[in-house]
Amino acid sequence: MINIAVLGYGTVGSGVVEVINTNYKSINAKAGDEINIKYVLDLRDFPDNPIQNKIVHDFDVILNDPEVTIIAEVMGGIEPAYTFVKKALEAGKSVCTSNKELVARHGLELLNIARDKDINFLFEASCGGGIPIIRPLNSSLTADEIDEITGILNGTTNYILSEMQAHGSDFEEVLKEAQDKGYAERNPEADVEGGDACRKIAILSSLAFGRHINYEEIYTEGITSISATDIKYVKAMGNSIKLLATSKKTKDGFYAMVSPVIVTPKSPLYSVNGVFNAIFVHGNVLGDAMFYGSGAGKLPTASAVVADIVDMARHSHCNVIVNWTSKALELMDIGAVKNRFFIRIKGEKAQRLPEVQKVFGEVETFELPDVEGEFAFISSKMSEADYQEKATKVDGIITMIRARM
Amino acid sequence: MINIAVLGYGTVGSGVVEVINTNYKSINAKAGDEINIKYVLDLRDFPDNPIQNKIVHDFDVILNDPEVTIIAEVMGGIEPAYTFVKKALEAGKSVCTSNKELVARHGLELLNIARDKDINFLFEASCGGGIPIIRPLNSSLTADEIDEITGILNGTTNYILSEMQAHGSDFEEVLKEAQDKGYAERNPEADVEGGDACRKIAILSSLAFGRHINYEEIYTEGITSISATDIKYVKAMGNSIKLLATSKKTKDGFYAMVSPVIVTPKSPLYSVNGVFNAIFVHGNVLGDAMFYGSGAGKLPTASAVVADIVDMARHSHCNVIVNWTSKALELMDIGAVKNRFFIRIKGEKAQRLPEVQKVFGEVETFELPDVEGEFAFISSKMSEADYQEKATKVDGIITMIRARM
Repeated sequence: MINIAVLGYGTVGSGVVEVINTNYKSINAKAGDEINIKYVLDLRDFPDNPIQNKIVHDFDVILNDPEVTIIAEVMGGIEPAYTFVKKALEAGKSVCTSNKELVARHGLELLNIARDKDINFLFEASCGGGIPIIRPLNSSLTADEIDEITGILNGTTNYILSEMQAHGSDFEEVLKEAQDKGYAERNPEADVEGGDACRKIAILSSLAFGRHINYEEIYTEGITSISATDIKYVKAMGNSIKLLATSKKTKDGFYAMVSPVIVTPKSPLYSVNGVFNAIFVHGNVLGDAMFYGSGAGKLPTASAVVADIVDMARHSHCNVIVNWTSKALELMDIGAVKNRFFIRIKGEKAQRLPEVQKVFGEVETFELPDVEGEFAFISSKMSEADYQEKATKVDGIITMIRARM
Repeated sequence: MINIAVLGYGTVGSGVVEVINTNYKSINAKAGDEINIKYVLDLRDFPDNPIQNKIVHDFDVILNDPEVTIIAEVMGGIEPAYTFVKKALEAGKSVCTSNKELVARHGLELLNIARDKDINFLFEASCGGGIPIIRPLNSSLTADEIDEITGILNGTTNYILSEMQAHGSDFEEVLKEAQDKGYAERNPEADVEGGDACRKIAILSSLAFGRHINYEEIYTEGITSISATDIKYVKAMGNSIKLLATSKKTKDGFYAMVSPVIVTPKSPLYSVNGVFNAIFVHGNVLGDAMFYGSGAGKLPTASAVVADIVDMARHSHCNVIVNWTSKALELMDIGAVKNRFFIRIKGEKAQRLPEVQKVFGEVETFELPDVEGEFAFISSKMSEADYQEKATKVDGIITMIRARM
C-alpha cells in the first residue's frame, strides 16, 4: 500500500479524491500497488463528508508520518505551498503539484532537491490541465531540438474570445457571463491580463529548451482591450483571434511572449475553441505536433495530478530525468521580435491610405460595411521596434493586434 | 557510452542515423550518456556512405556482442524481424521498433519477455509516426479509464481523401499522383484497404484497455470504393470524410472497426488533412484529448524511434510498465455496433422517398444540382445489422458510408 496525502480540498483536491475513488481498481493496477489517501490537509472541516476522517489541519502530521511517501499539492498560491512542498521533498517524500505559480517561481529549486534525494517532483497538471504535455516534453520529444512551443494555455480567455467571436459581444459582457457560469473567477486579472498563460509558457519553455526562463521577463499582454469591432474584422477576414503564449528559437535568439494573435484557418490552433487548450510544438526532426484537450476544470486537472501520483508510485526510488537546468535562457529584446500587425485606422481609406503606405509600404486593407469612418490593414512582417517607430508616424491608430499568417 | 545497433538501413533506419547525428549533443544530454551506433544491419553495402564501416550482414555479430545493449528494429515485416527481436530480448538487450505488423502480431509475447528480463520493448514509432501516443497512453493517461480511441492513423489514405476533397478527383487518379510523389507505395493495398490502420488501432486499443486485441478480429474497410460523387455530397453537407480506426467501450461491450466515416466540423478530427495523423482519446475523467502530428515520413518516424532509444538508455535496468495483458478483449459482434449511415439512392427523390421512409423512417435528404437521377439521405442511428436488413428492402443503393454526427 502506498500512502499519500492531498494538500488542499478545494476544486482540484476534491477532484483528486473523486478520481482515485472512481477509477480505484485500474489506477492501482497501473500503479502496481494500492494507492491509499491517508490525509487531506485543509483549514476547513467537512462534517457531512466522508473525507472528514482524513482531514488534518496541521501539515506536520503529514510531514512526520513516515508512511506517507507521496504528496499532491493542490492548494495553489506561493505560500504556504512552497514551504510545505520544500519540507516534504527534503523529508524524502515525492511531490506533485497543479500549481503553476509555484512551479514557475520555484520549480528549478524543487526539481534539484528531488534529484538530490532520488525522489520526484512532478507537475503535469500545472500546464494545460488534463492535456499530457509535461511528460511528453520530458520523455517523448527527446530526439528533437524543440524550436517552438505555442499554446492556447488559458481556458477562461479562450472561452471569452470564442464567445465574442460566436456572438459578436463585447469583452465585458462575455466576462460577466463567464463569471456567472463559473468559467471565470470573480477576480479575473490573472487570466485576462495573461499572467496565467505567462507562467505556463515559462514552465513549458524551460523544459523544452532545457534552460531556466524567468517568467517575469516574458512580454505579456492580455485580452482586455479586444473589442467587438476588432472581432468583426477578424471574422470578416475568415480568421480567428486567440491568446497565444509563444516561445521560439530564431536565428537571432530566443523570444517568449503572451499576446492576442490573429490566426488563419491553416493553423491547427484556429479551431481550438471554448475552454479547450492546445499546445503546438515544432521539433527540428519531428516537425509539427499538437496536443489538445481540456485545459482546466476539476476532473481533467485532477486526472493529470493522479497520473503524476501513479508515476511517482511506479518510480519510488528512481528520479525521472527532467531537462530543466539552472543555466538561464537569455531572451531577445522584444523589440527585435518579428510579427505582422493588424492595424485599425481612423478616417476614410481613400483619403488616408497614401499616408499609411508611405510609412508601412504596400498593405492589404479591409473595410467593414457597417463600421464607418475607419479601415484596417495588415502590415508586412517587421520587428516590434520597427512597428513602434512607424506607429508614431501615423495618426489615429485605433488598435494593433499581432497576426500570424 | 551506450552502444546500439540499428536493424535495417532503409527509410526509417537511415532516418534514425540522421537524427542521432543531427541532435547528437542534446540527445546524449537527455539520455544521460553518449549514444554510439556500433552496428547497422543490412543485406546491402553502402560503399560511398560513411555508414559502411558500421554495416554488418550477420545478425549474430550484434547478438553476440555484449557491448550492444539497445537495438532499434526498423526493417518492417514479420520475418526476420520477429526472430531477431525475440533473440535480442532473450539475450537481455532492450529493443524498440517501428514495426506495427510485428507489434500487432507478437507484441504481447515480446513485452512479456522484456518484463521477465527486466529490460524494455518499446514501440512508439509503430503508431502515428512521430506523434507521441504510446508513451502518453502508458504513462500519462493512467488516472483514466479510456472509453474511446479514434484515430486517423494512415497518412497515405488521409492524403488521398484530402486531395479528393480539395480537387474533386477520383480515387484512382489521386492514388497515382500519390504514388508518383512517394506518398503511396507501388503496392498500396495495406494502406488503402485499411490493414495498416487496423494493426495500429489493435496496438493502441490493447494498451488503452489493458487487454489483448487480435487485429484479425477487427472489422476493416478501406477507401477504394469512395467516389468523387460521394465526396461531392460530403462537401455539400459541409462535412469531411476520413478513414477512422475506432475502438470504443459501449454499454453493450467493446467494438473496434476501421472504415471511412463522414465527420462534421465539430469533430476535432475534421481539420486533420494531408499526411497528418491524429488520435482522439476520451477518458472517463479527462474527457476529450487529441494528439496531432506527422503520422509518417522518414524523420518524424525516426524521431519516435530515437525517443525510445533515449528512454531505454535512461531505464537500462528498469522495465517500463506497460498495461497490455494477455487477457483477450472480447469484441462485440459488429452487427450490434450502432452508427448513422449516409446512403445514395438511384432514382428521383419525389418518386422514391416514400419507399425509403417506409423502411428507414424520417430521414434528412440531399440532392446535388449537377448529379441527376439520384439522391442521398442520412439515416438515424441504428445497428449495423439493422442497416443490413433494411438495405435489402430498398432497391438501388449506390453507396453507404458511416457518419458521425
